[in-house]
Amino acid sequence: MKILILGAGGMVGQKLVKRMLQTEFNSVIPSNIYLFDLVFPHQNNISVNLIRGDLGDPQQIKKLAAKRFDIIFHLAAIVSGEAEENFNKGWQINLFSMWHLLEALKEEHINSSYEYVPKIIYTSSIAVFGPPYPKTISDEFLCAPQTSYGAQKASAELLLSDFSRKGFVNGISLRLPTICIRPGSANKAASSFFSNIIREPLNNKPAYLPVDTSVRHWHTSPRSAVNFLLHAIKIDFSNLNDRRAINLPGLSCTVEEQIEALRKIAGQNVVDLIESRPDPIIEKMVAGWPRNFDPKRALKLGFKSETTFDQIISTYISDDLGSV
Amino acid sequence: MKILILGAGGMVGQKLVKRMLQTEFNSVIPSNIYLFDLVFPHQNNISVNLIRGDLGDPQQIKKLAAKRFDIIFHLAAIVSGEAEENFNKGWQINLFSMWHLLEALKEEHINSSYEYVPKIIYTSSIAVFGPPYPKTISDEFLCAPQTSYGAQKASAELLLSDFSRKGFVNGISLRLPTICIRPGSANKAASSFFSNIIREPLNNKPAYLPVDTSVRHWHTSPRSAVNFLLHAIKIDFSNLNDRRAINLPGLSCTVEEQIEALRKIAGQNVVDLIESRPDPIIEKMVAGWPRNFDPKRALKLGFKSETTFDQIISTYISDDLGSV
Repeated sequence: MKILILGAGGMVGQKLVKRMLQTEFNSVIPSNIYLFDLVFPHQNNISVNLIRGDLGDPQQIKKLAAKRFDIIFHLAAIVSGEAEENFNKGWQINLFSMWHLLEALKEEHINSSYEYVPKIIYTSSIAVFGPPYPKTISDEFLCAPQTSYGAQKASAELLLSDFSRKGFVNGISLRLPTICIRPGSANKAASSFFSNIIREPLNNKPAYLPVDTSVRHWHTSPRSAVNFLLHAIKIDFSNLNDRRAINLPGLSCTVEEQIEALRKIAGQNVVDLIESRPDPIIEKMVAGWPRNFDPKRALKLGFKSETTFDQIISTYISDDLGSV
Repeated sequence: MKILILGAGGMVGQKLVKRMLQTEFNSVIPSNIYLFDLVFPHQNNISVNLIRGDLGDPQQIKKLAAKRFDIIFHLAAIVSGEAEENFNKGWQINLFSMWHLLEALKEEHINSSYEYVPKIIYTSSIAVFGPPYPKTISDEFLCAPQTSYGAQKASAELLLSDFSRKGFVNGISLRLPTICIRPGSANKAASSFFSNIIREPLNNKPAYLPVDTSVRHWHTSPRSAVNFLLHAIKIDFSNLNDRRAINLPGLSCTVEEQIEALRKIAGQNVVDLIESRPDPIIEKMVAGWPRNFDPKRALKLGFKSETTFDQIISTYISDDLGSV
């Protein structure tokens, strides 16, 4: 089994590789794992293949596709903040590189003497949704994205579904909740404060809260995100009835509940490191974000996430505290 | 006011031009109306500008965009049957030409000394939806297309919405019901039998019904389709709250109800020209099509359609019978 991870240098990609090289993937020879990204931080000693490259280059994508991977994890993206700033770059990478990838894989499918149909596990996002929302978002709620990132994810989902329906590839789009608590430093995602206000205080650093504590949002841990990706391998996508974009489970909680969990686990002194610093731009963006889901299909398919924010903090402490 | 109609050579395009040159657009000078298409049947004597060209060519699109039209009707499409047969052509014309058009218009917007933001009225389709359906499809129902045509329309909608949200253009996507009764001969749309079974008998020709008479579908007349397009000009798109794809009103009826209306209007002899000839491929496709909608937003915006199939037949008789 040959596996490719696009965007393997990112936070989730790194954790996915680490997990694959630990328990669950004992059957996969590390030399059959290929990581693709622009840069690979902290990954010099590992036994897998590193390919440095740019998804914006259709020729590189063709060369990659020619390796005929059995499973392709597609985690590469221009994140929300950057896609909003750099309109063209966002569309080129988040949508058109998906087109070039699928076209190249279709050619491999057509030219293969056996039935080559790679499994593609694509990380989409709850950013495909836009307000106004019902109290909980059902699996049948429309995509009306209010960011370029969300529009790009939603249209890449449509491409992946249609190439899959035609039998050229076999894909699933996993609409990840906001990943919390992200280790390391903040990325350009506008949602990164949800992580910052917990991670920074736990590392004895101050953190700034740009929104009101009543803000409710939909979270999952990095560990659950990796679980989702690995779980997707086991699913028979033909049971998806051509609805291949899945709202994943997560935890709906308010910033206040996040802070309460931090207080319970780490004490008032740590909580005191959070300083309210309202940012009207972020407040406006957050007002358009989903707050709660009823992800029936995903639960039925066996996807699991945390049920309390205490668990999310504990996961951070056990997986990442002090390690970055 | 300068107006461009992309796909003006098609059935709806021709009717739109005719209407514009009649009553409603007395204020528009015909020399300010531009028609763009690959071919223009029966339109040699009219006083508007004809541009023969291919939307698949980004250079032609750039030249068009440079004319800075105030209103662009985008009716051009590879229809459902053809998009299913010719996968690449469908995506190139139905999605990528939209990208090239929007990019070219964005450049005009950026380079204009005044605030150039063209209004784009794009004909999308109920093919953006896929089964299973609720009894009636609400304005918040997900897009899960089960044809390439539907996926292309849904992703072009996302592009148009995002370019509009950014202020580069000002667009609306009109999700047209199946247009019935189409004059002339059948096109490559898989839904054309809904028209054939009425039009052919009314013209003393036999017609073949490929599905069961219990099949329910969502229809509007060509005249209503033109009304939708002209009505859209009057709408302030800033009231759409960035949900710019609109399910339009139509008539939900069964094939049996269609035939009953035909019997009432034209008699049993005419109905006898319809011959049942089940086609498993079309039956399977039709099983995936929407049957009924609750288009609250469109009704509130003032869009109107027929309420009985009798009206749809009468419209055909008055507008098109004998004229083709």
